[in-house]
Amino acid sequence: MTSDGLHLGILGGGQLAQMLALAALPLGVRVTVLEPDALAPARLCATHLHAPYTDAAGLDTLAGCDAVTLEFENVPVEALDALQGRVPVRPGGTLLQRSKHRAREKEELRAAGAQTAPFVVVETEADLDGALAAIGGQGILKTSELGYDGKGQARVSDGDGLRAAWDSMGRVPCVLEGLIAFEREVSVAVARTPDGQTAFGPLVENVHKGGILRTSVFLPDDPQEARAHEIAGRVAQAWVLEGLMTLEFFQLPGGELLVNEVAPRVHNSGHLTQDGGGVGQFEAQVRAVLGLPLADWQPLHPCAMVNIIGVEGRTPDWAGVDALPGTHLHLYHKAWRAGRKLGHVNLVAPDERSLRERLAQLETLIP
Amino acid sequence: MTSDGLHLGILGGGQLAQMLALAALPLGVRVTVLEPDALAPARLCATHLHAPYTDAAGLDTLAGCDAVTLEFENVPVEALDALQGRVPVRPGGTLLQRSKHRAREKEELRAAGAQTAPFVVVETEADLDGALAAIGGQGILKTSELGYDGKGQARVSDGDGLRAAWDSMGRVPCVLEGLIAFEREVSVAVARTPDGQTAFGPLVENVHKGGILRTSVFLPDDPQEARAHEIAGRVAQAWVLEGLMTLEFFQLPGGELLVNEVAPRVHNSGHLTQDGGGVGQFEAQVRAVLGLPLADWQPLHPCAMVNIIGVEGRTPDWAGVDALPGTHLHLYHKAWRAGRKLGHVNLVAPDERSLRERLAQLETLIP
Repeated sequence: MTSDGLHLGILGGGQLAQMLALAALPLGVRVTVLEPDALAPARLCATHLHAPYTDAAGLDTLAGCDAVTLEFENVPVEALDALQGRVPVRPGGTLLQRSKHRAREKEELRAAGAQTAPFVVVETEADLDGALAAIGGQGILKTSELGYDGKGQARVSDGDGLRAAWDSMGRVPCVLEGLIAFEREVSVAVARTPDGQTAFGPLVENVHKGGILRTSVFLPDDPQEARAHEIAGRVAQAWVLEGLMTLEFFQLPGGELLVNEVAPRVHNSGHLTQDGGGVGQFEAQVRAVLGLPLADWQPLHPCAMVNIIGVEGRTPDWAGVDALPGTHLHLYHKAWRAGRKLGHVNLVAPDERSLRERLAQLETLIP
Repeated sequence: MTSDGLHLGILGGGQLAQMLALAALPLGVRVTVLEPDALAPARLCATHLHAPYTDAAGLDTLAGCDAVTLEFENVPVEALDALQGRVPVRPGGTLLQRSKHRAREKEELRAAGAQTAPFVVVETEADLDGALAAIGGQGILKTSELGYDGKGQARVSDGDGLRAAWDSMGRVPCVLEGLIAFEREVSVAVARTPDGQTAFGPLVENVHKGGILRTSVFLPDDPQEARAHEIAGRVAQAWVLEGLMTLEFFQLPGGELLVNEVAPRVHNSGHLTQDGGGVGQFEAQVRAVLGLPLADWQPLHPCAMVNIIGVEGRTPDWAGVDALPGTHLHLYHKAWRAGRKLGHVNLVAPDERSLRERLAQLETLIP
């Protein structure tokens, strides 16, 4: 099996699809994306089928690819149904259904032997009674479907607050998660081919700001990495993953890892693998989806990532970013909008100390 | 000055243009190439103006870019004339005229203080007499213009051979170069912005096979690097370079460096910088041409490159390449043809010993 001449279809044409295409091209793989946004980032480096995700002609074109993958989990069921049996869609419908539904995801994580925060499903008014007590008195109410980057979430600490939060979310099905006193948030990705090869990405430490990922840091030889890989591998096997999946964890003070969220794809926290000297997460997803040989993807030296997010009235100090040693700019060609992810800067350094120093400088340059 | 939203034009749409575009996109830079080949590699990641290099409408589009660069030196004069005064073309006509003419290039290298092999210009029959004696009795006859990858070259060691070689080249203007007993061939690139900032690429050691580059190797702290940078910097200043230029050197047993050839652009020997963790040569050219801040671009660890060249009846062991640690595949999406450069594999390793071991394996996998 060689990558040369293969054709990959992607549902979605945002920055993840753009970076998947940038990673696929050097493998000899052509990319076609189906994406309704005329100005989608991936249009610059892929054939862009400019149509709704459910467009019959667009889906016919994707059906002619060697495999189809996706850059977001909320793919319409009609699109998956239209491709069913005509082209491998990886990950497939079962795994995607799980990703779209927080409660089911948590239940199936536990079934696979992974730990999660305590949680209660809130679907009816009656579910509100005793819900907070069951998860430790304080929690975060999250809509079961369609939440991302802190949207559709509210922190609650008493019964009235819980009721008000549920009302404000339109009383849709929700999950109330217990608040975890974690030491840090980390993530790893796992890739698995249809024939059962698995490989792993590096353990990365993440810092969020206002519900959106702000920085990720990779340092070689993290003591939690082996355990995170073990959990990720177990879930990938149990869920019969085809493709790449990212697990976000809360690390408790004792070192224990609770799975917080799962994304059935490359993830913002893995962007730093693009410039670490090893294979990047985007290439790993392309390989896994096309059934090509896999190997663990690990940066060869310390590296970090800082997201560039639109902030009213402030722009990054671009010259400062360019002048800082070890920076790699990644812009997505998206129109500026407050709160929008517009790009990221990867940072590499020969050792931890210089990485920390440069990262502190970089954070002052990007508002 | 920020790269975000800039538009770069490229004359030529081959693999160098493809890799320039792949490096430009993450900077927020859009790319348009003018290229008559419908199946040009760059079509996959740039807007492709599918027309001759002298096409008026195509050149009008390029004239609307922020700057225009090129991936080959033999750009038709008409194209340069049409762009003159409308958009910065970098490098500009003077430097390109020099690159297209071996004898003038060598004379101007010497004028800039760089050393070259001894040479004699052969333009008339009379120039053949005494030519071999003047350069040490043995030499290589090269056409003054349009030669590359060993084409338009012949090794000669006596008067009859010289005459026959010149006849076979159609008696076009040639340069007879003295044969150099060199210890190794190395190269470096230098970038210079219009406002005079300069920066340098790593010193790379090159091995040719059948006149075509086969492997390049970078090891940190090469003792000749400082000297190579000094020469490259001197030439870049003297020639008022705008853009990026690669110098190939013969290193004599005493350590002295003679300039063999100059390419006014990124070069096959610099491909290994793509996966070295530092900035790559393609990004360096984009930055220099657009007048963005520069910094030396250096891999952070040992790395190497092996070209994939079409060989009748043999294909690379793709699975073996994928399975070897530290490999990064770069295919150009070109149709197979014997002797054609179809792609390359970059190789990274934590230390010199493992680089050498992996490189030896990689060479057996790529015929």
